[in-house]
Amino acid sequence: MRSSPVPLPAALSELAFLGDRLSTHRAVRDHHSQSESHIRSRSPDAVAFPETTAEVAQIARICSRHALPMIGWGAGTSLEGHALAVQGGLTLNFSRMNKLLAVHPEDRIAIVQPGITREALNTELRATGLFFPVDPGANASLGGMAMTRASGTTAVRYGTMRHNVLGFEVVLADGQILRTGSTAPKSASGYDLTALLVGSEGTLGLVTELTLRLQGQPEAVSAALCAFPTIAAAVDCVTLTIQMGLPMARIEFLDTEAVAACAAWSGQALTPAPHLLVEFHGSPESVAEQATRFGEMARDHGCAGFHWAKAQEDRTRLWKMRHQAYPAILARRPGATALVTDVCVPISALAQAVEETRADIAASGIPGPILGHVGDGNFHAILLVQPEDAAEQAIAKQLSDRMAARALRLGGTITGEHGIGLGKLGHMAAEHGAAWAVMGAIKRALDPQGLLNPGKLVPQ
Amino acid sequence: MRSSPVPLPAALSELAFLGDRLSTHRAVRDHHSQSESHIRSRSPDAVAFPETTAEVAQIARICSRHALPMIGWGAGTSLEGHALAVQGGLTLNFSRMNKLLAVHPEDRIAIVQPGITREALNTELRATGLFFPVDPGANASLGGMAMTRASGTTAVRYGTMRHNVLGFEVVLADGQILRTGSTAPKSASGYDLTALLVGSEGTLGLVTELTLRLQGQPEAVSAALCAFPTIAAAVDCVTLTIQMGLPMARIEFLDTEAVAACAAWSGQALTPAPHLLVEFHGSPESVAEQATRFGEMARDHGCAGFHWAKAQEDRTRLWKMRHQAYPAILARRPGATALVTDVCVPISALAQAVEETRADIAASGIPGPILGHVGDGNFHAILLVQPEDAAEQAIAKQLSDRMAARALRLGGTITGEHGIGLGKLGHMAAEHGAAWAVMGAIKRALDPQGLLNPGKLVPQ
Repeated sequence: MRSSPVPLPAALSELAFLGDRLSTHRAVRDHHSQSESHIRSRSPDAVAFPETTAEVAQIARICSRHALPMIGWGAGTSLEGHALAVQGGLTLNFSRMNKLLAVHPEDRIAIVQPGITREALNTELRATGLFFPVDPGANASLGGMAMTRASGTTAVRYGTMRHNVLGFEVVLADGQILRTGSTAPKSASGYDLTALLVGSEGTLGLVTELTLRLQGQPEAVSAALCAFPTIAAAVDCVTLTIQMGLPMARIEFLDTEAVAACAAWSGQALTPAPHLLVEFHGSPESVAEQATRFGEMARDHGCAGFHWAKAQEDRTRLWKMRHQAYPAILARRPGATALVTDVCVPISALAQAVEETRADIAASGIPGPILGHVGDGNFHAILLVQPEDAAEQAIAKQLSDRMAARALRLGGTITGEHGIGLGKLGHMAAEHGAAWAVMGAIKRALDPQGLLNPGKLVPQ
Repeated sequence: MRSSPVPLPAALSELAFLGDRLSTHRAVRDHHSQSESHIRSRSPDAVAFPETTAEVAQIARICSRHALPMIGWGAGTSLEGHALAVQGGLTLNFSRMNKLLAVHPEDRIAIVQPGITREALNTELRATGLFFPVDPGANASLGGMAMTRASGTTAVRYGTMRHNVLGFEVVLADGQILRTGSTAPKSASGYDLTALLVGSEGTLGLVTELTLRLQGQPEAVSAALCAFPTIAAAVDCVTLTIQMGLPMARIEFLDTEAVAACAAWSGQALTPAPHLLVEFHGSPESVAEQATRFGEMARDHGCAGFHWAKAQEDRTRLWKMRHQAYPAILARRPGATALVTDVCVPISALAQAVEETRADIAASGIPGPILGHVGDGNFHAILLVQPEDAAEQAIAKQLSDRMAARALRLGGTITGEHGIGLGKLGHMAAEHGAAWAVMGAIKRALDPQGLLNPGKLVPQ
């Protein structure tokens, strides 16, 4: 990997073809050294705002020649510091490559540039009757979502980015432009480079185009909020629902603390108890049938009643509340920053994992509401710490480390959807063993100089 | 890649630890030089029948030291010659590693050895209420199915092997044992080595264990057979069904020639016309609803009536007939062998692809019934040629090449499910361009001596 000092001025003069779309202003560089999480880094040496694949390829050729690191930047919503230029170099901000290039409604496919955000894409798709289902909550860019293998509230029904990216156009470290995948629904043709790139966190190439699988807007949608007497009752209800094969579109868990934060932030009156937020998609008949079957299971687990949200505006309010859980929880402790944890376990181990985590956080003295996409076995504790309190920071780090170790012990993974970035690098050896070195070998094969997002994902 | 002669005797003496599970008998070696298709090869130099992962690792260390090729062999049902030892070496026959190691019903997961066949697995699972959905027709081994990224009749509902393998234990060329994936429903942890291995055709490692996603047996199942006036009507009906988002469990197409062959072979009376075979899975209510909606669309496309198969024994007879289409079609031309083609296109291009193929075959003078998993845009022509007729062989090869080129022109892929093997290697550059070289770089990174299934998949 790269160790010599960066010969910046020569590279910069070659990058001058970008005009005012190359910046070395301190404010611009500093903006690209921050993320939504607790993780900070040094600034990149410069920031480029490319507009075309050809420009990205030219940038890569120049950076490659000068051994300058290249770091892709989408919407800056990473929670693990993926897009931070820890070794300096050039950050490529894709916000000007944000177009919906084509929609093929008959094949339910969209071709997009990497900088388009999830919300912008779905707004543009509205008239087609189709939507892109992956919903990580944050208004992330599609390129960033692909690179972190994002998922979120709807993955239990529609899959993660792994299932919803059909192909890429990608620029390699040396400036070569590749295409992966096809627009056919499936293929058995060669190594699945598309799947290898999804979740590769910008360490193998710079994505310049994505082919996405779309879904038809469901004919009928119904959502509900239901309170449970205990965490165990709520989680056991989720487990049974999944095991029964009910095709939930969403099934989200919030513990009592998370519910209290959402209630205070949104001004909605909510029972101070663990809650599930659920949504059903389908024909009117199948939505009604699913709701009935889920209702029976929920009542069996002590749910006293449902707040239904059938009208679009009620559902929008419900999911807005869920998506604002992060600021709502942050607001519970003024001045605090959050360490957002992220683990995923087999559904059979979910109740144990959540309850042990709950007890561990309670014993730590740090506030840490728990919520998550429990239909996938995926949950988060949002640990609130004072930024200047080193002792609290250390306690939060230990809690997060224990969650990761617990997830592995239970047959799970150290990250369900937030990715590795800087925050989880220390757990890669524990999860992958010898397979981590194989990831390193693949990285060296595709990026022998180690210039693409250095310091991330593979053994350093 | 390997070019020096194989120093066999020394390697064989080290492999003697396998006892009578190492064979150099001509009959055994010759058995492993044949496949179900028209492709033939030289024989391997020896065949091993390992029983444990440790044995596979020891074999790999020995072969690696002696630069002896290693070729995995499952059930021998490949249609593209994947498992043929084109450069000699050692074939590892996994038929003794055929156990269902564990079932976790609460997580809908099974852990299996690679040699277990699809039918054996589902027989063993019967009491659990779960099943493994991927159904390529042939009673293939799960290891082979993973390595070719197999799919088949149910992929339209349950996905291909890409979606149904959660993890592997795999032995690398140098004998290292890796684990990939986890038992969690999803993960964002590092490169997706599981997805990279699925479809890698034994060129990156020898799979010794698979973690599989299972499905719950549907509460209700209903299947039907329906005749259409024309190919276009049948295929247009499929396209509309998929575009409407009807969750078909199976939707299979057979053209008139394929129907005639199946009728003759099974003794069932069938209308001499293009047919769709469909199946619905779900609750009794949703199956009834799906059947009604599909029925309306089928009638709109000229389907005169349905033959329903609601009872298990009727459905078994229906799908047995479909699964025996291959021998049924072979029997139409005594003495002939088959070149089984396999392409996949976007659903919007399906009617054009099938009709152009039909016309091309009709003009060639060679019999070639068409059938396929059209819900995925995937179809096959089974080209019947006399094995000694070089002119016919050439015509069939040209038809197959034109199908592949047509699929690429329409945004599709040269293989939907049969894989590359030897038959499609010549089309890899056309489909993947520069990305094919990247596959080669990954291969060299993981298998620098080029010992794992040499002569396959990557640029030679």
